[in-house]
Amino acid sequence: MSLKKRTYEILNVSREKGDLSWWVDVLLVTLISLNALALILETVETVFEQYEAFFYYFELVSVIIFSVEYVLRVWSANAAPAYRKPGTGNLRYALTPMALIDLLAVLPFYLPLLGFDFRIARTLRLFRLLRLFKISRYTKALQHINRVFQDKREELGISLTFTTILLLLASTLMYYAEHEAQPEAFSSIPETMWWGIATLTTVGYGDVYPVTAIGKLLGGVIAVIGIGLFALPTGILASGFSEKLSQEAETACPHCGERLEGSRS
Amino acid sequence: MSLKKRTYEILNVSREKGDLSWWVDVLLVTLISLNALALILETVETVFEQYEAFFYYFELVSVIIFSVEYVLRVWSANAAPAYRKPGTGNLRYALTPMALIDLLAVLPFYLPLLGFDFRIARTLRLFRLLRLFKISRYTKALQHINRVFQDKREELGISLTFTTILLLLASTLMYYAEHEAQPEAFSSIPETMWWGIATLTTVGYGDVYPVTAIGKLLGGVIAVIGIGLFALPTGILASGFSEKLSQEAETACPHCGERLEGSRS
Amino acid sequence: MSLKKRTYEILNVSREKGDLSWWVDVLLVTLISLNALALILETVETVFEQYEAFFYYFELVSVIIFSVEYVLRVWSANAAPAYRKPGTGNLRYALTPMALIDLLAVLPFYLPLLGFDFRIARTLRLFRLLRLFKISRYTKALQHINRVFQDKREELGISLTFTTILLLLASTLMYYAEHEAQPEAFSSIPETMWWGIATLTTVGYGDVYPVTAIGKLLGGVIAVIGIGLFALPTGILASGFSEKLSQEAETACPHCGERLEGSRS
Amino acid sequence: MSLKKRTYEILNVSREKGDLSWWVDVLLVTLISLNALALILETVETVFEQYEAFFYYFELVSVIIFSVEYVLRVWSANAAPAYRKPGTGNLRYALTPMALIDLLAVLPFYLPLLGFDFRIARTLRLFRLLRLFKISRYTKALQHINRVFQDKREELGISLTFTTILLLLASTLMYYAEHEAQPEAFSSIPETMWWGIATLTTVGYGDVYPVTAIGKLLGGVIAVIGIGLFALPTGILASGFSEKLSQEAETACPHCGERLEGSRS
Repeated sequence: MSLKKRTYEILNVSREKGDLSWWVDVLLVTLISLNALALILETVETVFEQYEAFFYYFELVSVIIFSVEYVLRVWSANAAPAYRKPGTGNLRYALTPMALIDLLAVLPFYLPLLGFDFRIARTLRLFRLLRLFKISRYTKALQHINRVFQDKREELGISLTFTTILLLLASTLMYYAEHEAQPEAFSSIPETMWWGIATLTTVGYGDVYPVTAIGKLLGGVIAVIGIGLFALPTGILASGFSEKLSQEAETACPHCGERLEGSRS
Repeated sequence: MSLKKRTYEILNVSREKGDLSWWVDVLLVTLISLNALALILETVETVFEQYEAFFYYFELVSVIIFSVEYVLRVWSANAAPAYRKPGTGNLRYALTPMALIDLLAVLPFYLPLLGFDFRIARTLRLFRLLRLFKISRYTKALQHINRVFQDKREELGISLTFTTILLLLASTLMYYAEHEAQPEAFSSIPETMWWGIATLTTVGYGDVYPVTAIGKLLGGVIAVIGIGLFALPTGILASGFSEKLSQEAETACPHCGERLEGSRS
Repeated sequence: MSLKKRTYEILNVSREKGDLSWWVDVLLVTLISLNALALILETVETVFEQYEAFFYYFELVSVIIFSVEYVLRVWSANAAPAYRKPGTGNLRYALTPMALIDLLAVLPFYLPLLGFDFRIARTLRLFRLLRLFKISRYTKALQHINRVFQDKREELGISLTFTTILLLLASTLMYYAEHEAQPEAFSSIPETMWWGIATLTTVGYGDVYPVTAIGKLLGGVIAVIGIGLFALPTGILASGFSEKLSQEAETACPHCGERLEGSRS
Repeated sequence: MSLKKRTYEILNVSREKGDLSWWVDVLLVTLISLNALALILETVETVFEQYEAFFYYFELVSVIIFSVEYVLRVWSANAAPAYRKPGTGNLRYALTPMALIDLLAVLPFYLPLLGFDFRIARTLRLFRLLRLFKISRYTKALQHINRVFQDKREELGISLTFTTILLLLASTLMYYAEHEAQPEAFSSIPETMWWGIATLTTVGYGDVYPVTAIGKLLGGVIAVIGIGLFALPTGILASGFSEKLSQEAETACPHCGERLEGSRS
C-alpha cells in the first residue's frame, strides 16, 4: 500500500477502535472541541487577559495541525475513486464544500503574512467559527440536518415564501396602525418586521409592542392566526429530522450499526 | 385564433418556459415583487427623501401596467368557458375575488382624479398591499393556504368558538383578580384580553402581567391548561397545510409536475 | 301531548329549523351572547357611565328570562325518561351540573332581596360568568372539550403530577441559586414558581429572570430540558381534541350531519 | 416467613389495598409530600418565623422515619432474589440509585453531629430536595420519564449535540454583531448564550435583545430557522413520553390494571 493510500485511510473516519486512524480522529475531534472552547473563552475579558499568551500559542499550534491536515487531505485525495486523477482530482477535491471549509478555517491566519491589512484579517477571525463544521465528519448530528435540508427543500421553499408574505403583511398592517402612536419603535416597515418576527415566533422580547386599541386588536388577530402558519418551516424541519432519525434506526444493522444496503440515503 | 383568445392565453400562467406568455408572467411577478419592495422602502424616511421622485414614477408606471392588465383580463375573460357570454360573462369575471383584488389594487390612484378627497385617497393607499395577493396566481404557497382554510373551515369554526370562550373566561377572571391592584393595565375586560392573548399564545411581551398572589396563581393555571387548548386553531392550520403539501407530492406526476387525474383537489 | 312535554321539547335543542323550539334556541343563544357582551362592556368605564341604566334594565330582563327558563326546565324535567318520577325526578334534574349552572347564574341577583349583605352579593356577580356555560347546550365546542377531559383523565393525571414535580424541582433549585442576588423577585419558593411557570410555558413575561451566572446556567438547562416535558398536559389536551374532531367527522352521516349509530361517544 | 422477608414485603409497594404494606405506603407518600410542602413553606419568611419550632420538629421526625426506612431497606434487601447474599448483597443494594437517594436525603442532618462544619451542612440542605424522588417508587409519572430517557438516549444524544452546536453558532455570530453596541449585555460569548437560549426556546424574557440592524436581521433569521431545530430534544422527549403512555394503555389488563405478560418494558 502506497504512502498516499495509507495517509488517506488514516485521515478518514476509522472503522476500528484503537488503530492509528482512530487515534487521529480522537486527536482532531479533541482539537476542534478545544478550538470551539478557546473561541468562546477568548471573549471573556478576565480569562483572555490572564491567558493571552496561552491563547496565542494554542491558536498557532491549531493552525499548524489543521494546515498539515488540509495539505495531506488534498494530497491524498487521489486515493478516493472519485478523485483518482492526479492534479485535476486534487483540485476537484479542493473545491468540495468540506475542503473549502478546511481551507477557510486556517486562511485568515496566513493573510497578514502575505501582506494583507491586519484590519481585514481581524474581521476574518470569524472564519475560525468554520472549524466547528470540521466536526461534521465525525458526528451524525450535522450530517442528519444537512440531509433534512436536502430532502425537504421544496416544502421549505414553499413555506418560506408563505412565511415571508405573512410577515410582510402583518408588519405592513401593524406599521400603519402604530406608526403615529410610536414613531420610534414602528419607524418603518423593515423596523416593524422586528416586532413581526418576535410575535410570530412567540419569542416576544417585549422591546416593541402595540399600544393603540387598533394595534392591539390587530396584534391579537395576527398572533392567533399567524403563529400556526409561521410555525410551518420549523415544523417541517423538526418532522424531517425525526423521520431521518427513525429511518436511521430501521435501516441500521442491529449488530454493527452500519447502514444496510438498499436503504434510501 | 382570435386576438381575445391569444390575449387570454398570454395573461394566464404559461405552460411552457420561454414563450411570450412566460415572459409576461416573469414581468408581472417582478413588478409585483418590486411593488412590495417599494411599499416597504417608502416607509424608511432616509430612503424616501432621497428617492421621492423615483418612487412617484415607479408607482405611475406600475399603476399603468396593472390597469392595462386588469382591462385586458376583463375583456379577454370570454375566452374562458365559464365566462363565455360577452357582457354578463365579463361582468361575472369582474366580480371574482381575484379580479376585485386587481381592481382595488389600482383604484386608489384614480380616486383623486375623479374629484374624491385626497385625504380619503391617502387612507386607501393601504389597498396597494393588495397587489401582493396578485402574486398568488404564480405561486403555490398562497393557493395552498387558501385550500387549507376551505378544507378545515368547520374545525376552524369550532376551535375558534372555543378559543374565544377560553379567552373571555381567562380575561374576565384575571380582570377581577388584578383590577384593583393594577387599575391601569387591567382597566377593563377588553383591555385584559390583551394580556390574555399575549399569555395564551405564549408571546408574553411583558407589558402587562399579574402582580397579586391570586392573579399569579390564576395566571399560572391559565397558562398550563389554556396554552394547549389555545393552540388548537393554529395546530389545525399547520396540520392542514402539511397534509396538503404531502398530498401534492403524491398526486403530482413525477415527470412534468402536473397534478394527476382523479386526485382530490 | 301534555303541556309539560311540549315545554320540554321547546326548551331542548330543536331538530328542525324554523319551528317554535328553534326560535327559543335562537332567543336564548342571543341573550347569552348579549350577556357576555354586557359583562365585558360594563367594565369599560366610559361605556358604563353612559349606559348605566341600560345595563341595569338589561340585567333585570336577563335574570327574569333565565329564571323563567330555569323554573320551566326543572318543572318539565319529568318529560325526560331519566327523570320521569315527579318530585324526586325534578330534584335529581336540579342537581345535574347544567341545572346547577342555570341556578347559580341567576342566584346572586336574588340574594340581596333575601336579606343577604350587598357586599357578598357583589362578589357573587362573578357568577354571572357562569351564564357563558349555558351556551354549551347549543355549541359543540364546549361539549367536545368536556369529552376530551373525560377520555384523557388518566394521562392528564399522570402528566400533571409530573409537571408539578418538575415545576417544584426547577423552582427550588432556582430559588437557592438566585435568592441572595435578588431577594425581592425570588423571595420564596412559591414566588419563584411564578418564574418557573413563565419559563416552562415559554411565556417569559420578563418580570423575573435569573441574573447570576449559576442562575442563568440553571435556567438554560431547565428551559432546554423542561419545556418539552412541561408541554405534555397541553399536548395531550390538544391531540385529544383533534382526535375527537376527526372521529366526529368519520361517524357523522354525510347527509344530515347526525351522529351514526354504533359510534363511540 | 422470616422477619426480614416480611419487612421487605411491607416496605415494597403493596399489591392489595388496605393491608399493612399499603398503610406504610400511604404513610411514606404522605410524609414525602409533607416534606416537599415544608421545603417550600420554609422559604416563605412570614410562615417560617411563626412556625420555626414546628418546622424543626417536623424535620427531626422525618429524618428519623426516613433513616429507619433506609436501614430496614438495606437490611431486608437480601429478601430480593437479586441481592440474596448477605453482606455483599446489602452493599450492592446500598449502591443502587434509589438507595443512594434514600441515604443522601437524610445524610446532611447527621453531618454536624459527626463534627462537620455547619456551613457545609447548610449547603447540603439542598439534598433534602432528593426526598422528592423517593416518591418515584409510588407514582408512575417519574418511572415513565425515566424509561423515556432510557429508550431515547441515542436520539437525545444526537439532537443535544446538534442543539449545542446551533446555540454556539447563533451566540457567536450574535456576539460579533452586538458586542460593540451593547458591551454590557453581550459582553462575551458565554453571556450571549443566555440570549441564545431565551430566543431559541422562545421564552424571550426581554432582558437582552439585539438593537443594531445587523443584529436584528441575524436574530430574525436565527429565530425563524433555529426554533424548529432547537425544539428537537424537547420534541423527542414529549413524543417518547406519549408513546409510553399509549403503550401502557394497550398492554395493561382492562380488569386489574396490571401490566400484561410479554409487553415490552
